[in-house]
Amino acid sequence: MSHSPQTPELIQDFLQGNRAALGRAITLVESNHPKHQMAAEAILSAAMSAKKNSIRIGITGVPGVGKSTFIEALGKLLISQGHRVAVLAVDPSSQRSQGSILGDKTRMQELSRDEDAFIRPSPSGETLGGVARKTRESMILCEAAGYDVILVETMGVGQSEILVHSMVDFFLLLKLAGAGDELQGIKRGIMEMADSIVINKADGENKQRAQRAQKEFQGALHYLQQRGDGWSPQVLLSSGLHNQGIEEVWSLIEGYIKESLASGKFDQQRSEQEAEWFYQSLKEQLQQAFQDSPKMKAALSEKLEAIQKRQATPYRAALGLVEDFLKEGQS
Amino acid sequence: MSHSPQTPELIQDFLQGNRAALGRAITLVESNHPKHQMAAEAILSAAMSAKKNSIRIGITGVPGVGKSTFIEALGKLLISQGHRVAVLAVDPSSQRSQGSILGDKTRMQELSRDEDAFIRPSPSGETLGGVARKTRESMILCEAAGYDVILVETMGVGQSEILVHSMVDFFLLLKLAGAGDELQGIKRGIMEMADSIVINKADGENKQRAQRAQKEFQGALHYLQQRGDGWSPQVLLSSGLHNQGIEEVWSLIEGYIKESLASGKFDQQRSEQEAEWFYQSLKEQLQQAFQDSPKMKAALSEKLEAIQKRQATPYRAALGLVEDFLKEGQS
Repeated sequence: MSHSPQTPELIQDFLQGNRAALGRAITLVESNHPKHQMAAEAILSAAMSAKKNSIRIGITGVPGVGKSTFIEALGKLLISQGHRVAVLAVDPSSQRSQGSILGDKTRMQELSRDEDAFIRPSPSGETLGGVARKTRESMILCEAAGYDVILVETMGVGQSEILVHSMVDFFLLLKLAGAGDELQGIKRGIMEMADSIVINKADGENKQRAQRAQKEFQGALHYLQQRGDGWSPQVLLSSGLHNQGIEEVWSLIEGYIKESLASGKFDQQRSEQEAEWFYQSLKEQLQQAFQDSPKMKAALSEKLEAIQKRQATPYRAALGLVEDFLKEGQS
Repeated sequence: MSHSPQTPELIQDFLQGNRAALGRAITLVESNHPKHQMAAEAILSAAMSAKKNSIRIGITGVPGVGKSTFIEALGKLLISQGHRVAVLAVDPSSQRSQGSILGDKTRMQELSRDEDAFIRPSPSGETLGGVARKTRESMILCEAAGYDVILVETMGVGQSEILVHSMVDFFLLLKLAGAGDELQGIKRGIMEMADSIVINKADGENKQRAQRAQKEFQGALHYLQQRGDGWSPQVLLSSGLHNQGIEEVWSLIEGYIKESLASGKFDQQRSEQEAEWFYQSLKEQLQQAFQDSPKMKAALSEKLEAIQKRQATPYRAALGLVEDFLKEGQS
């Protein structure tokens, strides 16, 4: 099976920064269809040889926190400074539909019209692991196409933050000033992952509450364990809608990146992330191969029955099954 | 390889409730040595046929919360009511040594002298997964030996709570009244797992603070999502040292067990736990087999190098490696 004769041309186009070509290249790489496999490999191989510098920023926050407006404001600022900005998303598939392509571009209307911006919604119809794989590879393609700032957004629910955190250089948590219960309902795990927190919608009547929340969060951050890298996460205020505080957020991020490039942390973290992605892929694919084996499917329900009948402990039942699987791995 | 001629005798002894025989049986089942494999299978098989009713209770709390004193008081109460009580532990191996056998029995001195109590420390020199496997199998042996209440203690650190939660019928969180920061530093995940909370050391000067903490925790539990089973976790007070509040805790647990037996939840949860244990074992053993394959060890470092040189994405590198492994699974 050889790849389509159009592939070399497509590669040339997207490497030159053509947005439509980049979109098509991502579609091929995202495809689960075997006939796109070779084209995907060629595209990824070309993208990886064309390594360019980039900054990857993860942005998380619950629905309603104003992520799109914030990202639009940040994106426009970056473009005005000469950057090219790609916006990718990692969202649980159940929350998204094909309609979200329109949704994302509608939500970030000005940004999406700009030639220096590339907006791509979360791949749909996938497990979270599948979404993460595709977003990681899309990121590589965007970088090869000359987008030097990659914003990866995700909703503040479930496991998606952990995944996004594991693929970016800087992880930003957007919050709203609440009704005094900020610290009550907070997910401590996400606080611990955040490189900084931004209280968004800090405008109008909300401003004072946002300032109070800023103090509370700054206080709460002190309860967390000291980081090994000497960085102290900050709590900033912003209004995406009124374009306030965005420059401060960017200069904070720039400062962090500069520091971590100088200390070597930047490269070390990326290389750790790749190793983690590799080991995670190995695990997932081993399990997938096991599940896909028809013999194992039959054996699995037999063993489950034996466990229910108290003929074997789950551990020892698994032991036998894995042995059988490896003996007849090809089947 | 056949098992030792002493095995049938050992089985008979431990099934009759002989504590020393139970200890030896657990040692054989815990053993990683291939020569104990057949004896272990015979012992487990006999234990599983001898299924007897039991209640499994997980007890967690940070060091200093008074777990041993609480367990000793609860254990003595249970024995006075005609129960036989086994105390097992799941602790991270780094925290434990062989010395802990002495440690546990010293900490629960009165209980350990009682013929109706069996105390066994956490198996040492193991990963947490290994500890969990052994504790689960020990639990089956204890039940076969006629211990009808199994207390599984763990320290309030890391992943061990999740493991213990997944092997018990009732999960109890022990807390201390702190200095007003109870809700600040709390691990929300553990709150969500707890079937109830006990504020221990609620005695003397501490009593008032414990009562305040009780109200605060009861309030905090309202913030958590409603459980599907209609159970509302309670917050009780106890003093293990002065033997206060222990009966109330036990009657709460008994009420819960009665309810969940009647609703069918009890059996359903046990069967889900066994399935989970089975799938978890499958995953772990697949990975283990992969890691143990000498060919894969060499290939792994080659692929990692290719990833660093940007010759393959981690996902695609893994894809190739798993294919190779399954083709030559026997090697």
